[in-house]
Amino acid sequence: MSRILENSEAPKLPPWLETRYDPRIMIKRLITSVDVARHAGVSQSAVSRAFSSNASISPATRAKVFEAAAALNYRPNRIPAIMLSGRSGMIGVVVGGLSNPFYALALEHLTISLRDAGFQIMLVHVDDALTFDTALDQLASYRVDAVITALAVGTRETARSLTELNIPAICFNSRIIGPGISTILSNNYASGSLAAHIMQEQGVARPVWLAGPTRNAASRERRRGFLEAFSARQGTGKIVTELQGDDTYESGFTAIREYLRQDHRPDGLFCSNDLMACGALDALRDHGVFSCPEDVMVIGYDNIPQGAWHAYQLTTFSQNLAALVEAATEILAKIFSAPAARISQRRVIEADLIVRRSTKRTAPTS
Amino acid sequence: MSRILENSEAPKLPPWLETRYDPRIMIKRLITSVDVARHAGVSQSAVSRAFSSNASISPATRAKVFEAAAALNYRPNRIPAIMLSGRSGMIGVVVGGLSNPFYALALEHLTISLRDAGFQIMLVHVDDALTFDTALDQLASYRVDAVITALAVGTRETARSLTELNIPAICFNSRIIGPGISTILSNNYASGSLAAHIMQEQGVARPVWLAGPTRNAASRERRRGFLEAFSARQGTGKIVTELQGDDTYESGFTAIREYLRQDHRPDGLFCSNDLMACGALDALRDHGVFSCPEDVMVIGYDNIPQGAWHAYQLTTFSQNLAALVEAATEILAKIFSAPAARISQRRVIEADLIVRRSTKRTAPTS
Repeated sequence: MSRILENSEAPKLPPWLETRYDPRIMIKRLITSVDVARHAGVSQSAVSRAFSSNASISPATRAKVFEAAAALNYRPNRIPAIMLSGRSGMIGVVVGGLSNPFYALALEHLTISLRDAGFQIMLVHVDDALTFDTALDQLASYRVDAVITALAVGTRETARSLTELNIPAICFNSRIIGPGISTILSNNYASGSLAAHIMQEQGVARPVWLAGPTRNAASRERRRGFLEAFSARQGTGKIVTELQGDDTYESGFTAIREYLRQDHRPDGLFCSNDLMACGALDALRDHGVFSCPEDVMVIGYDNIPQGAWHAYQLTTFSQNLAALVEAATEILAKIFSAPAARISQRRVIEADLIVRRSTKRTAPTS
Repeated sequence: MSRILENSEAPKLPPWLETRYDPRIMIKRLITSVDVARHAGVSQSAVSRAFSSNASISPATRAKVFEAAAALNYRPNRIPAIMLSGRSGMIGVVVGGLSNPFYALALEHLTISLRDAGFQIMLVHVDDALTFDTALDQLASYRVDAVITALAVGTRETARSLTELNIPAICFNSRIIGPGISTILSNNYASGSLAAHIMQEQGVARPVWLAGPTRNAASRERRRGFLEAFSARQGTGKIVTELQGDDTYESGFTAIREYLRQDHRPDGLFCSNDLMACGALDALRDHGVFSCPEDVMVIGYDNIPQGAWHAYQLTTFSQNLAALVEAATEILAKIFSAPAARISQRRVIEADLIVRRSTKRTAPTS
């Protein structure tokens, strides 16, 4: 039984729809094909055909329609085509926190790429006040052709909703699977391993892992790669200290400030994202005793623009947004070429290591 | 004569619409009201009425419909309502560069606020490859109810397009006017004056203004307020040095690095936005001779999260996103309550001064 129908009342309509029968708003706001037909002295169907590239219409009639359309500032209406075909050309894009520059830039890349492929974007923001399932209901009612999300929407319920509603979905860095659900992953485990190997080469003996929220599947994989690479080299003893953050700058700053106050002296710090790494670098600078990279090397993840700022010069993993977005549009193309197939692709995109000052030690310190 | 109709060929259709007559794609992807009606043993019109809060239907029939809908995972289709009412419940939101955290956060606030008011967002990104007018055509074809933009779209052509297409528009920090076009402005001139007064109180004698792109109307007003306040106090002589940036971190860093290399010794710097101010602070730190705030005070604009980071601690003007977005939704309410009125509101929102370390001098230096 679906949520929306759990009580016997009608679903709540948004205000703009509530008033749709109000005669005061039934004014003609936009020029319609009927107006163009009247102005051109042709049938309404001729107007529709004039604006369809594969319909039969004489050049003279088309010219007449275009002239009338220009005079009236008419724009073809896509809504009837959506009704006829059941396809809207709209892709639902579900985002969470845009305060992380990585997600803002990912959205920008995606928006440009989908636009260039001829799609429109219906943007939905999911936060505590709105669950992903509620967002899905809204997107379904507008008949979006597919949903793309960068949220950590790993629940079994979400996968079931997507499958039940039969909306193809593409999820970034998520672990949900199901018919019609594709995932595009950054190679988080391998990146975690590489971070560990870089630190080992530089003689890091007191490594620290600064985690994102535990619900973040990408963070869990980065941790696993980092810890296993240290264990493999050093034996099975636990040598990596684990600190907990929440993916914000503030959490990185606080976690490292507190750790240093307890007189710990880390010499290598791998942060689950760049925002926390910038906070960690500021905590190190404020503390004053340590300096980076001489005493402690720092590695982040995401390659946000701020990591390249002169105050940070952070070594990090670039998630290669162009490749992530290209994979998404390729999967969309597959979805559209075989709409009945319930495409479930899985793509892994290598992250590129961007080396900056934060790991440029001249010699090992231990 | 409109762009779209300048040649005599049919307008190019996006790929998904090109193939709408292809029988292969005419499969039934989503459950329709016809399916629900058949399953419930009622008419299709009964299904529509069951999902409309102000239609007449018996409780028993509605229950039957809801049961069938739940069994089939049906979601009401909003597309027919869009056709009937001419109102889509969609607001077109036109954005430029999301790499500026201010615009990313403004988009987030707007998305949440419009969602809570019952609207959906159609997101369009305008860059060099796509003009605002082309974006407008796309939005018009989807019948968006209004357009909100934070772009500096100050051309007379843009205003004419909006008016011709009869799409109500709300523009942030823009100077375009016209029937149906509303503007919401930050109080840029007053903020520029206040920045000058703060510097004058601290004895700043060699003030510098770091400008954004000249097409940016908000930057021009901030400059005017800053320069006029200095002129009023110091006489008509030009005492403010003007440097040119382009609103990016890099341009702020480069402009100030070059200025310091020429042996200039500014003691007050007002930047048209925070990104440039962060770049300027890093250039000062790298230069090493000066320190902020002892030798030079720095003021930015926008209150991006990075300005509060420990490496910057930037004094800045907060544009009060909550107030800007609230003004936008109030104007939308007016537009919807009187759709024929061509609402043209103008709202000015005071910016709040956020004082941080970058202006906390203990005593005047000159």
